[in-house]
Amino acid sequence: MTYFVRRDQVTIAWAHCDPAGIVFYGRFFEFFDHSTWMLFEEVLTTKAREIPARFNIIGFPIVDLKTRFFKPLTYGVVVDIETTIREFRNSSFDVQHRLFVAQELAVEGVETRVWAGRDPNDPGRIRGMALPAEVIERFRSG
Amino acid sequence: MTYFVRRDQVTIAWAHCDPAGIVFYGRFFEFFDHSTWMLFEEVLTTKAREIPARFNIIGFPIVDLKTRFFKPLTYGVVVDIETTIREFRNSSFDVQHRLFVAQELAVEGVETRVWAGRDPNDPGRIRGMALPAEVIERFRSG
Amino acid sequence: MTYFVRRDQVTIAWAHCDPAGIVFYGRFFEFFDHSTWMLFEEVLTTKAREIPARFNIIGFPIVDLKTRFFKPLTYGVVVDIETTIREFRNSSFDVQHRLFVAQELAVEGVETRVWAGRDPNDPGRIRGMALPAEVIERFRSG
Amino acid sequence: MTYFVRRDQVTIAWAHCDPAGIVFYGRFFEFFDHSTWMLFEEVLTTKAREIPARFNIIGFPIVDLKTRFFKPLTYGVVVDIETTIREFRNSSFDVQHRLFVAQELAVEGVETRVWAGRDPNDPGRIRGMALPAEVIERFRSG
Repeated sequence: MTYFVRRDQVTIAWAHCDPAGIVFYGRFFEFFDHSTWMLFEEVLTTKAREIPARFNIIGFPIVDLKTRFFKPLTYGVVVDIETTIREFRNSSFDVQHRLFVAQELAVEGVETRVWAGRDPNDPGRIRGMALPAEVIERFRSG
Repeated sequence: MTYFVRRDQVTIAWAHCDPAGIVFYGRFFEFFDHSTWMLFEEVLTTKAREIPARFNIIGFPIVDLKTRFFKPLTYGVVVDIETTIREFRNSSFDVQHRLFVAQELAVEGVETRVWAGRDPNDPGRIRGMALPAEVIERFRSG
Repeated sequence: MTYFVRRDQVTIAWAHCDPAGIVFYGRFFEFFDHSTWMLFEEVLTTKAREIPARFNIIGFPIVDLKTRFFKPLTYGVVVDIETTIREFRNSSFDVQHRLFVAQELAVEGVETRVWAGRDPNDPGRIRGMALPAEVIERFRSG
Repeated sequence: MTYFVRRDQVTIAWAHCDPAGIVFYGRFFEFFDHSTWMLFEEVLTTKAREIPARFNIIGFPIVDLKTRFFKPLTYGVVVDIETTIREFRNSSFDVQHRLFVAQELAVEGVETRVWAGRDPNDPGRIRGMALPAEVIERFRSG
Protein backbone atom coordinates (compact mmCIF):
# COMPACT_ATOMS: atom_id res chain seq x y z
CA MET A 1 0.00 0.00 0.00
CA THR A 2 1.34 3.39 -0.93
CA TYR A 3 -0.22 6.65 0.05
CA PHE A 4 -0.29 10.20 -1.20
CA VAL A 5 3.11 11.94 -1.21
CA ARG A 6 3.27 15.60 -0.23
CA ARG A 7 6.10 17.73 -1.64
CA ASP A 8 7.38 20.98 -0.25
CA GLN A 9 10.45 23.16 -0.53
CA VAL A 10 12.24 25.19 2.13
CA THR A 11 15.35 27.35 2.16
CA ILE A 12 17.72 26.87 5.07
CA ALA A 13 17.77 30.02 7.18
CA TRP A 14 20.63 31.56 9.14
CA ALA A 15 18.76 30.82 12.39
CA HIS A 16 18.61 27.12 11.51
CA CYS A 17 22.39 26.82 11.52
CA ASP A 18 24.92 26.35 14.30
CA PRO A 19 28.51 27.57 14.78
CA ALA A 20 29.75 24.76 12.52
CA GLY A 21 27.67 26.46 9.81
CA ILE A 22 25.28 23.53 9.40
CA VAL A 23 21.65 22.99 10.35
CA PHE A 24 21.22 22.15 14.02
CA TYR A 25 19.58 18.73 13.88
CA GLY A 26 16.69 19.65 16.21
CA ARG A 27 15.54 22.06 13.54
CA PHE A 28 14.78 19.30 11.04
CA PHE A 29 11.90 18.20 13.23
CA GLU A 30 10.18 21.54 12.66
CA PHE A 31 10.23 20.61 8.97
CA PHE A 32 9.03 17.07 9.73
CA ASP A 33 6.24 18.28 11.96
CA HIS A 34 5.00 21.02 9.66
CA SER A 35 5.05 18.62 6.72
CA THR A 36 2.99 16.10 8.69
CA TRP A 37 0.30 18.66 9.50
CA MET A 38 0.29 19.95 5.93
CA LEU A 39 0.00 16.40 4.58
CA PHE A 40 -3.15 15.90 6.64
CA GLU A 41 -4.44 19.33 5.66
CA GLU A 42 -4.01 18.53 2.00
CA VAL A 43 -5.44 15.02 2.09
CA LEU A 44 -8.33 15.77 4.44
CA THR A 45 -9.00 19.15 2.74
CA THR A 46 -9.35 20.53 6.25
CA LYS A 47 -7.22 23.39 7.57
CA ALA A 48 -4.56 21.92 9.88
CA ARG A 49 -5.73 24.19 12.68
CA GLU A 50 -9.25 22.75 12.39
CA ILE A 51 -8.19 19.09 12.38
CA PRO A 52 -8.07 18.68 16.18
CA ALA A 53 -11.61 20.03 16.70
CA ARG A 54 -13.03 18.18 13.70
CA PHE A 55 -11.69 14.82 14.86
CA ASN A 56 -11.83 15.47 18.59
CA ILE A 57 -8.08 14.96 19.07
CA ILE A 58 -5.34 17.13 20.55
CA GLY A 59 -3.00 16.30 17.68
CA PHE A 60 -0.71 13.39 16.83
CA PRO A 61 2.20 13.40 19.28
CA ILE A 62 5.25 11.37 18.40
CA VAL A 63 6.21 8.20 20.26
CA ASP A 64 9.08 6.90 18.14
CA LEU A 65 11.55 8.64 15.86
CA LYS A 66 14.31 7.29 13.67
CA THR A 67 16.35 9.66 11.55
CA ARG A 68 19.48 9.35 9.47
CA PHE A 69 21.53 12.35 8.41
CA PHE A 70 23.47 11.72 5.22
CA LYS A 71 24.91 15.13 4.53
CA PRO A 72 25.12 18.38 6.46
CA LEU A 73 22.98 21.23 5.16
CA THR A 74 24.30 24.76 5.11
CA TYR A 75 22.80 28.23 5.06
CA GLY A 76 20.85 29.14 1.94
CA VAL A 77 20.51 25.60 0.60
CA VAL A 78 17.17 24.78 -1.01
CA VAL A 79 15.65 21.56 0.33
CA ASP A 80 12.96 19.43 -1.29
CA ILE A 81 10.83 17.58 1.25
CA GLU A 82 8.77 14.49 0.52
CA THR A 83 6.36 13.30 3.18
CA THR A 84 4.14 10.24 3.06
CA ILE A 85 2.39 7.75 5.32
CA ARG A 86 4.13 4.38 5.53
CA GLU A 87 1.54 2.58 7.61
CA PHE A 88 -1.72 3.18 9.43
CA ARG A 89 -2.53 1.12 12.53
CA ASN A 90 -5.49 1.21 14.88
CA SER A 91 -4.56 4.39 16.74
CA SER A 92 -1.14 5.27 15.36
CA PHE A 93 0.66 5.74 12.09
CA ASP A 94 4.15 5.93 10.61
CA VAL A 95 5.03 8.99 8.58
CA GLN A 96 8.21 9.20 6.52
CA HIS A 97 10.09 12.35 5.61
CA ARG A 98 12.86 12.61 3.06
CA LEU A 99 14.89 15.76 2.47
CA PHE A 100 16.76 16.16 -0.78
CA VAL A 101 19.32 18.72 -1.90
CA ALA A 102 19.87 18.78 -5.64
CA GLN A 103 18.16 15.36 -5.92
CA GLU A 104 20.51 13.85 -3.36
CA LEU A 105 19.04 12.37 -0.16
CA ALA A 106 20.28 14.44 2.80
CA VAL A 107 18.01 13.43 5.71
CA GLU A 108 15.52 10.60 6.10
CA GLY A 109 13.24 9.99 9.06
CA VAL A 110 10.31 7.86 10.11
CA GLU A 111 8.06 8.96 12.93
CA THR A 112 5.46 6.92 14.74
CA ARG A 113 2.68 9.19 15.85
CA VAL A 114 -0.43 8.55 17.92
CA TRP A 115 -3.88 9.79 16.96
CA ALA A 116 -4.35 11.23 20.44
CA GLY A 117 -7.23 12.68 22.38
CA ARG A 118 -8.05 13.47 25.96
CA ASP A 119 -9.26 10.55 28.02
CA PRO A 120 -12.97 11.30 28.65
CA ASN A 121 -12.65 9.84 32.16
CA ASP A 122 -9.49 11.83 32.95
CA PRO A 123 -9.08 14.92 30.73
CA GLY A 124 -5.57 15.57 32.02
CA ARG A 125 -4.50 12.29 30.41
CA ILE A 126 -3.70 11.98 26.74
CA ARG A 127 -4.29 8.63 25.02
CA GLY A 128 -4.57 7.01 21.61
CA MET A 129 -7.95 7.11 19.86
CA ALA A 130 -9.10 4.87 17.00
CA LEU A 131 -8.10 6.36 13.64
CA PRO A 132 -11.31 7.03 11.72
CA ALA A 133 -11.71 4.79 8.64
CA GLU A 134 -12.65 7.95 6.76
CA VAL A 135 -9.19 9.39 7.39
CA ILE A 136 -7.35 6.30 6.18
CA GLU A 137 -9.58 6.04 3.14
CA ARG A 138 -8.78 9.59 2.07
CA PHE A 139 -5.05 8.84 2.14
CA ARG A 140 -5.59 5.79 -0.08
CA SER A 141 -7.39 7.67 -2.74
CA GLY A 142 -5.50 10.90 -2.13
CA MET B 1 9.10 52.07 43.58
CA THR B 2 11.44 49.13 43.18
CA TYR B 3 10.39 45.54 43.13
CA PHE B 4 11.91 42.17 43.86
CA VAL B 5 14.83 41.23 41.59
CA ARG B 6 15.16 37.64 40.42
CA ARG B 7 18.61 36.34 39.55
CA ASP B 8 19.42 33.33 37.42
CA GLN B 9 22.35 31.93 35.52
CA VAL B 10 22.46 30.15 32.17
CA THR B 11 25.23 28.75 30.01
CA ILE B 12 25.07 29.53 26.32
CA ALA B 13 24.46 26.29 24.39
CA TRP B 14 25.69 25.29 20.95
CA ALA B 15 22.08 25.33 19.68
CA HIS B 16 21.71 28.97 20.75
CA CYS B 17 24.46 30.09 18.38
CA ASP B 18 24.48 30.88 14.68
CA PRO B 19 27.11 30.47 11.95
CA ALA B 20 28.85 33.65 13.14
CA GLY B 21 29.39 31.75 16.40
CA ILE B 22 27.20 34.10 18.45
CA VAL B 23 23.80 33.74 20.07
CA PHE B 24 20.97 34.17 17.57
CA TYR B 25 19.07 37.15 18.99
CA GLY B 26 15.67 35.43 18.94
CA ARG B 27 17.03 33.03 21.55
CA PHE B 28 17.42 35.74 24.17
CA PHE B 29 13.66 35.98 24.38
CA GLU B 30 13.49 32.42 25.63
CA PHE B 31 15.63 33.62 28.53
CA PHE B 32 13.49 36.73 28.98
CA ASP B 33 10.27 34.75 28.92
CA HIS B 34 11.39 31.99 31.26
CA SER B 35 12.76 34.56 33.70
CA THR B 36 9.43 36.40 33.68
CA TRP B 37 7.50 33.25 34.53
CA MET B 38 10.01 32.27 37.20
CA LEU B 39 9.86 35.76 38.71
CA PHE B 40 6.10 35.38 39.13
CA GLU B 41 6.53 31.82 40.43
CA GLU B 42 8.98 33.00 43.05
CA VAL B 43 7.09 36.09 44.17
CA LEU B 44 3.63 34.53 44.12
CA THR B 45 4.92 31.23 45.59
CA THR B 46 2.78 29.53 42.96
CA LYS B 47 4.15 27.14 40.38
CA ALA B 48 4.35 28.97 37.06
CA ARG B 49 2.21 26.30 35.43
CA GLU B 50 -0.53 26.91 37.98
CA ILE B 51 -0.55 30.70 37.62
CA PRO B 52 -2.95 30.81 34.62
CA ALA B 53 -5.59 28.68 36.36
CA ARG B 54 -5.18 30.40 39.71
CA PHE B 55 -5.66 33.89 38.26
CA ASN B 56 -7.96 32.92 35.39
CA ILE B 57 -5.60 34.19 32.71
CA ILE B 58 -4.01 32.60 29.66
CA GLY B 59 -0.63 34.16 30.47
CA PHE B 60 0.95 37.56 29.94
CA PRO B 61 1.58 38.00 26.21
CA ILE B 62 3.94 40.74 25.13
CA VAL B 63 2.78 43.87 23.35
CA ASP B 64 5.96 45.95 23.29
CA LEU B 65 9.62 45.00 23.36
CA LYS B 66 12.76 47.10 23.42
CA THR B 67 16.14 45.42 23.57
CA ARG B 68 19.70 46.59 23.22
CA PHE B 69 22.56 44.21 22.51
CA PHE B 70 25.89 45.51 23.79
CA LYS B 71 28.14 42.57 23.13
CA PRO B 72 27.78 39.30 21.25
CA LEU B 73 27.65 36.15 23.38
CA THR B 74 29.47 33.04 22.31
CA TYR B 75 29.13 29.33 23.01
CA GLY B 76 29.86 28.25 26.57
CA VAL B 77 29.66 31.73 28.11
CA VAL B 78 28.02 31.91 31.53
CA VAL B 79 25.33 34.59 31.71
CA ASP B 80 23.88 36.20 34.84
CA ILE B 81 20.28 37.29 34.37
CA GLU B 82 18.53 39.91 36.48
CA THR B 83 14.78 40.30 36.04
CA THR B 84 12.54 42.78 37.78
CA ILE B 85 9.26 44.64 37.34
CA ARG B 86 9.67 48.27 36.35
CA GLU B 87 6.03 49.28 36.52
CA PHE B 88 2.60 47.83 37.12
CA ARG B 89 -0.41 49.40 35.40
CA ASN B 90 -4.08 48.48 35.46
CA SER B 91 -3.87 45.45 33.18
CA SER B 92 -0.26 45.47 32.00
CA PHE B 93 3.25 45.68 33.38
CA ASP B 94 6.82 46.37 32.29
CA VAL B 95 9.44 43.75 33.05
CA GLN B 96 13.14 44.45 32.63
CA HIS B 97 15.81 41.86 31.88
CA ARG B 98 19.54 42.45 32.07
CA LEU B 99 22.12 39.87 31.01
CA PHE B 100 25.65 40.16 32.30
CA VAL B 101 28.83 38.34 31.34
CA ALA B 102 31.61 38.71 33.87
CA GLN B 103 29.75 41.66 35.45
CA GLU B 104 29.54 43.46 32.11
CA LEU B 105 26.12 44.31 30.68
CA ALA B 106 25.62 42.34 27.47
CA VAL B 107 21.89 42.58 26.72
CA GLU B 108 19.15 44.74 28.22
CA GLY B 109 15.47 44.59 27.43
CA VAL B 110 12.15 45.92 28.63
CA GLU B 111 8.95 44.13 27.79
CA THR B 112 5.41 45.40 28.20
CA ARG B 113 3.14 42.47 28.90
CA VAL B 114 -0.61 42.23 29.30
CA TRP B 115 -2.30 40.32 32.11
CA ALA B 116 -4.50 38.53 29.61
CA GLY B 117 -7.55 36.34 29.80
CA ARG B 118 -10.24 35.12 27.48
CA ASP B 119 -13.08 37.51 26.89
CA PRO B 120 -16.07 35.89 28.68
CA ASN B 121 -18.36 37.08 25.87
CA ASP B 122 -16.05 35.81 23.12
CA PRO B 123 -13.68 33.06 24.32
CA GLY B 124 -11.74 33.13 21.07
CA ARG B 125 -10.68 36.69 21.91
CA ILE B 126 -7.82 37.47 24.29
CA ARG B 127 -7.92 40.74 26.25
CA GLY B 128 -6.34 42.50 29.21
CA MET B 129 -7.73 41.79 32.67
CA ALA B 130 -7.29 43.94 35.79
CA LEU B 131 -4.09 42.99 37.62
CA PRO B 132 -5.13 41.77 41.09
CA ALA B 133 -3.98 44.10 43.89
CA GLU B 134 -2.78 40.95 45.67
CA VAL B 135 -0.29 40.28 42.88
CA ILE B 136 1.16 43.79 42.91
CA GLU B 137 1.35 43.79 46.69
CA ARG B 138 3.39 40.60 46.71
CA PHE B 139 5.97 42.16 44.40
CA ARG B 140 6.31 45.17 46.68
CA SER B 141 7.06 43.12 49.71
CA GLY B 142 8.84 40.38 47.76
CA MET C 1 14.43 58.51 1.11
CA THR C 2 12.57 55.27 0.61
CA TYR C 3 14.16 52.00 -0.32
CA PHE C 4 13.16 48.78 -1.98
CA VAL C 5 10.45 46.81 -0.11
CA ARG C 6 10.70 43.04 0.01
CA ARG C 7 7.51 41.02 0.42
CA ASP C 8 7.21 37.46 1.63
CA GLN C 9 4.56 35.15 3.01
CA VAL C 10 4.80 32.52 5.74
CA THR C 11 2.31 30.18 7.36
CA ILE C 12 2.45 29.92 11.15
CA ALA C 13 3.56 26.42 12.13
CA TRP C 14 2.56 24.34 15.13
CA ALA C 15 6.14 24.56 16.45
CA HIS C 16 5.95 28.37 16.41
CA CYS C 17 3.11 28.39 18.94
CA ASP C 18 3.05 28.11 22.72
CA PRO C 19 0.57 26.57 25.17
CA ALA C 20 -1.65 29.66 24.85
CA GLY C 21 -1.96 28.66 21.20
CA ILE C 22 -0.21 31.79 19.90
CA VAL C 23 3.18 32.40 18.32
CA PHE C 24 5.96 32.54 20.91
CA TYR C 25 7.37 36.04 20.38
CA GLY C 26 10.98 34.91 20.05
CA ARG C 27 9.95 33.15 16.86
CA PHE C 28 9.10 36.38 15.07
CA PHE C 29 12.79 37.23 14.99
CA GLU C 30 13.46 34.21 12.83
CA PHE C 31 11.10 35.83 10.32
CA PHE C 32 12.74 39.24 10.79
CA ASP C 33 16.22 37.82 10.37
CA HIS C 34 15.48 35.69 7.35
CA SER C 35 13.68 38.60 5.68
CA THR C 36 16.70 40.84 6.28
CA TRP C 37 19.07 38.37 4.63
CA MET C 38 16.67 37.79 1.75
CA LEU C 39 16.26 41.55 1.26
CA PHE C 40 20.01 41.88 0.82
CA GLU C 41 20.10 38.81 -1.41
CA GLU C 42 17.46 40.27 -3.66
CA VAL C 43 18.83 43.80 -3.84
CA LEU C 44 22.49 42.82 -4.15
CA THR C 45 21.66 39.91 -6.49
CA THR C 46 24.10 37.88 -4.41
CA LYS C 47 23.15 34.67 -2.60
CA ALA C 48 22.77 35.48 1.10
CA ARG C 49 25.31 32.81 1.97
CA GLU C 50 27.87 34.52 -0.25
CA ILE C 51 27.33 38.02 1.12
CA PRO C 52 29.75 37.69 4.07
CA ALA C 53 32.65 36.52 1.89
CA ARG C 54 31.91 39.02 -0.89
CA PHE C 55 31.89 42.00 1.48
CA ASN C 56 34.38 40.64 4.02
CA ILE C 57 31.90 40.77 6.90
CA ILE C 58 30.65 38.17 9.35
CA GLY C 59 27.06 39.36 8.93
CA PHE C 60 24.98 42.20 10.36
CA PRO C 61 24.39 41.49 14.05
CA ILE C 62 21.66 43.42 15.78
CA VAL C 63 22.36 46.09 18.40
CA ASP C 64 18.91 47.57 18.96
CA LEU C 65 15.44 46.13 18.56
CA LYS C 66 12.02 47.67 19.00
CA THR C 67 8.92 45.59 18.33
CA ARG C 68 5.23 46.07 18.89
CA PHE C 69 2.79 43.20 18.87
CA PHE C 70 -0.72 44.28 17.92
CA LYS C 71 -2.51 40.98 17.70
CA PRO C 72 -1.63 37.41 18.63
CA LEU C 73 -1.06 35.03 15.72
CA THR C 74 -2.36 31.49 15.86
CA TYR C 75 -1.50 28.22 14.17
CA GLY C 76 -2.11 28.07 10.45
CA VAL C 77 -2.47 31.80 9.93
CA VAL C 78 -0.94 33.17 6.72
CA VAL C 79 1.30 36.18 7.34
CA ASP C 80 2.43 38.77 4.82
CA ILE C 81 5.84 40.24 5.64
CA GLU C 82 7.12 43.57 4.36
CA THR C 83 10.77 44.40 4.97
CA THR C 84 12.58 47.57 4.03
CA ILE C 85 15.54 49.70 5.02
CA ARG C 86 14.61 52.82 6.96
CA GLU C 87 18.06 54.39 7.16
CA PHE C 88 21.65 53.69 6.27
CA ARG C 89 24.42 55.17 8.40
CA ASN C 90 28.19 54.85 8.17
CA SER C 91 28.47 51.32 9.54
CA SER C 92 24.94 50.47 10.59
CA PHE C 93 21.40 50.51 9.26
CA ASP C 94 17.79 50.32 10.42
CA VAL C 95 15.60 47.66 8.91
CA GLN C 96 11.84 47.62 9.43
CA HIS C 97 9.60 44.56 9.37
CA ARG C 98 5.82 44.61 9.26
CA LEU C 99 3.68 41.48 9.53
CA PHE C 100 0.12 41.59 8.29
CA VAL C 101 -2.72 39.11 8.65
CA ALA C 102 -5.58 39.75 6.23
CA GLN C 103 -4.21 43.27 5.58
CA GLU C 104 -4.22 44.07 9.31
CA LEU C 105 -0.93 45.01 10.97
CA ALA C 106 -0.08 42.32 13.53
CA VAL C 107 3.60 42.91 14.40
CA GLU C 108 5.95 45.79 13.60
CA GLY C 109 9.62 45.98 14.41
CA VAL C 110 12.67 48.09 13.70
CA GLU C 111 16.13 46.63 14.08
CA THR C 112 19.44 48.48 14.10
CA ARG C 113 22.10 46.24 12.67
CA VAL C 114 25.83 46.69 12.30
CA TRP C 115 27.72 45.94 9.09
CA ALA C 116 30.23 43.86 11.05
CA GLY C 117 33.58 42.30 10.32
CA ARG C 118 36.47 40.91 12.25
CA ASP C 119 38.94 43.46 13.54
CA PRO C 120 42.10 42.89 11.43
CA ASN C 121 44.23 43.60 14.51
CA ASP C 122 42.22 41.26 16.75
CA PRO C 123 40.27 38.63 14.78
CA GLY C 124 38.41 37.49 17.90
CA ARG C 125 36.80 40.91 18.07
CA ILE C 126 33.81 41.88 15.94
CA ARG C 127 33.37 45.55 14.96
CA GLY C 128 31.47 47.80 12.57
CA MET C 129 32.87 48.31 9.08
CA ALA C 130 32.04 51.12 6.67
CA LEU C 131 28.99 50.26 4.58
CA PRO C 132 30.10 50.21 0.93
CA ALA C 133 28.56 53.02 -1.15
CA GLU C 134 27.82 50.36 -3.74
CA VAL C 135 25.52 48.56 -1.31
CA ILE C 136 23.56 51.67 -0.39
CA GLU C 137 23.27 52.70 -4.04
CA ARG C 138 21.73 49.35 -4.96
CA PHE C 139 19.00 49.80 -2.37
CA ARG C 140 18.15 53.25 -3.72
CA SER C 141 17.65 52.06 -7.23
CA GLY C 142 16.38 48.62 -6.16
CA MET D 1 32.16 -1.60 28.96
CA THR D 2 30.36 1.19 30.78
CA TYR D 3 31.40 4.80 30.74
CA PHE D 4 30.98 7.85 32.91
CA VAL D 5 27.36 8.99 33.32
CA ARG D 6 26.61 12.70 33.36
CA ARG D 7 23.55 13.92 35.23
CA ASP D 8 21.76 17.21 34.77
CA GLN D 9 18.42 18.75 35.54
CA VAL D 10 16.28 21.12 33.50
CA THR D 11 12.88 22.71 33.99
CA ILE D 12 10.54 22.69 31.01
CA ALA D 13 9.97 26.26 29.83
CA TRP D 14 6.87 27.81 28.30
CA ALA D 15 8.77 28.30 25.02
CA HIS D 16 9.50 24.55 24.87
CA CYS D 17 5.79 23.70 24.69
CA ASP D 18 3.29 23.65 21.83
CA PRO D 19 -0.43 24.38 21.62
CA ALA D 20 -1.19 20.92 23.02
CA GLY D 21 0.65 22.11 26.14
CA ILE D 22 3.47 19.57 25.77
CA VAL D 23 7.12 19.85 24.80
CA PHE D 24 7.59 20.12 21.04
CA TYR D 25 9.74 17.08 20.27
CA GLY D 26 12.40 19.00 18.35
CA ARG D 27 13.24 20.75 21.60
CA PHE D 28 14.44 17.56 23.27
CA PHE D 29 17.43 17.57 20.93
CA GLU D 30 18.62 20.82 22.42
CA PHE D 31 18.81 18.93 25.70
CA PHE D 32 20.50 15.95 24.04
CA ASP D 33 23.04 18.13 22.28
CA HIS D 34 23.91 20.29 25.26
CA SER D 35 24.28 17.20 27.46
CA THR D 36 26.64 15.64 24.92
CA TRP D 37 28.89 18.70 24.88
CA MET D 38 28.79 18.97 28.67
CA LEU D 39 29.64 15.26 29.00
CA PHE D 40 32.77 15.82 26.94
CA GLU D 41 33.56 19.01 28.86
CA GLU D 42 33.33 17.19 32.16
CA VAL D 43 35.26 14.08 31.16
CA LEU D 44 37.96 15.87 29.15
CA THR D 45 38.17 18.71 31.71
CA THR D 46 38.22 21.05 28.72
CA LYS D 47 35.67 23.80 28.17
CA ALA D 48 33.23 22.62 25.49
CA ARG D 49 33.97 25.71 23.42
CA GLU D 50 37.66 24.80 23.39
CA ILE D 51 37.17 21.17 22.39
CA PRO D 52 37.03 21.80 18.61
CA ALA D 53 40.30 23.75 18.56
CA ARG D 54 42.05 21.38 20.97
CA PHE D 55 41.21 18.29 18.93
CA ASN D 56 41.17 19.93 15.51
CA ILE D 57 37.54 19.02 14.84
CA ILE D 58 34.48 21.08 13.93
CA GLY D 59 32.33 19.17 16.43
CA PHE D 60 30.53 15.83 16.43
CA PRO D 61 27.61 16.07 14.01
CA ILE D 62 24.91 13.45 14.24
CA VAL D 63 24.40 10.81 11.57
CA ASP D 64 21.80 8.56 13.19
CA LEU D 65 19.15 9.22 15.80
CA LYS D 66 16.66 6.92 17.50
CA THR D 67 14.33 8.30 20.14
CA ARG D 68 11.33 6.97 21.98
CA PHE D 69 8.88 9.23 23.77
CA PHE D 70 7.11 7.47 26.64
CA LYS D 71 5.19 10.31 28.20
CA PRO D 72 4.48 13.90 27.21
CA LEU D 73 6.19 16.57 29.29
CA THR D 74 4.34 19.70 30.28
CA TYR D 75 5.33 23.21 31.27
CA GLY D 76 7.19 23.53 34.57
CA VAL D 77 8.06 19.86 34.91
CA VAL D 78 11.53 19.13 36.31
CA VAL D 79 13.48 16.66 34.18
CA ASP D 80 16.49 14.60 35.21
CA ILE D 81 18.83 13.87 32.31
CA GLU D 82 21.34 11.02 32.23
CA THR D 83 23.85 10.98 29.39
CA THR D 84 26.50 8.38 28.72
CA ILE D 85 28.53 6.89 25.91
CA ARG D 86 27.32 3.50 24.76
CA GLU D 87 30.11 2.72 22.32
CA PHE D 88 33.19 4.25 20.81
CA ARG D 89 34.24 3.26 17.29
CA ASN D 90 37.10 4.43 15.10
CA SER D 91 35.68 7.81 14.15
CA SER D 92 32.20 7.78 15.64
CA PHE D 93 30.42 7.05 18.89
CA ASP D 94 26.96 6.33 20.29
CA VAL D 95 25.67 8.55 23.05
CA GLN D 96 22.56 7.71 25.02
CA HIS D 97 20.24 10.20 26.71
CA ARG D 98 17.52 9.33 29.16
CA LEU D 99 15.06 11.85 30.56
CA PHE D 100 13.22 11.07 33.75
CA VAL D 101 10.33 12.81 35.48
CA ALA D 102 9.85 11.76 39.08
CA GLN D 103 12.07 8.71 38.43
CA GLU D 104 9.91 7.61 35.52
CA LEU D 105 11.51 7.30 32.08
CA ALA D 106 9.93 9.88 29.78
CA VAL D 107 12.25 10.06 26.76
CA GLU D 108 15.13 7.84 25.65
CA GLY D 109 17.41 8.41 22.70
CA VAL D 110 20.60 7.11 21.15
CA GLU D 111 22.59 9.25 18.79
CA THR D 112 25.45 8.18 16.54
CA ARG D 113 27.83 11.07 16.14
CA VAL D 114 30.94 11.48 14.05
CA TRP D 115 34.19 12.92 15.38
CA ALA D 116 34.37 15.31 12.44
CA GLY D 117 36.97 17.62 11.00
CA ARG D 118 37.58 19.46 7.80
CA ASP D 119 39.17 17.42 5.05
CA PRO D 120 42.72 18.85 4.73
CA ASN D 121 42.53 18.36 0.95
CA ASP D 122 39.10 20.00 0.67
CA PRO D 123 38.29 22.30 3.62
CA GLY D 124 34.69 22.72 2.49
CA ARG D 125 34.15 19.02 3.11
CA ILE D 126 33.49 17.61 6.58
CA ARG D 127 34.60 14.05 7.32
CA GLY D 128 35.20 11.63 10.19
CA MET D 129 38.56 11.74 11.97
CA ALA D 130 40.11 9.02 14.14
CA LEU D 131 38.94 9.37 17.74
CA PRO D 132 42.07 9.96 19.84
CA ALA D 133 42.85 7.07 22.21
CA GLU D 134 43.35 9.69 24.90
CA VAL D 135 39.71 10.73 24.60
CA ILE D 136 38.36 7.19 24.90
CA GLU D 137 40.67 6.45 27.79
CA ARG D 138 39.37 9.42 29.76
CA PHE D 139 35.81 8.16 29.44
CA ARG D 140 36.81 4.75 30.75
CA SER D 141 38.37 6.07 33.87
CA GLY D 142 35.96 9.02 34.16
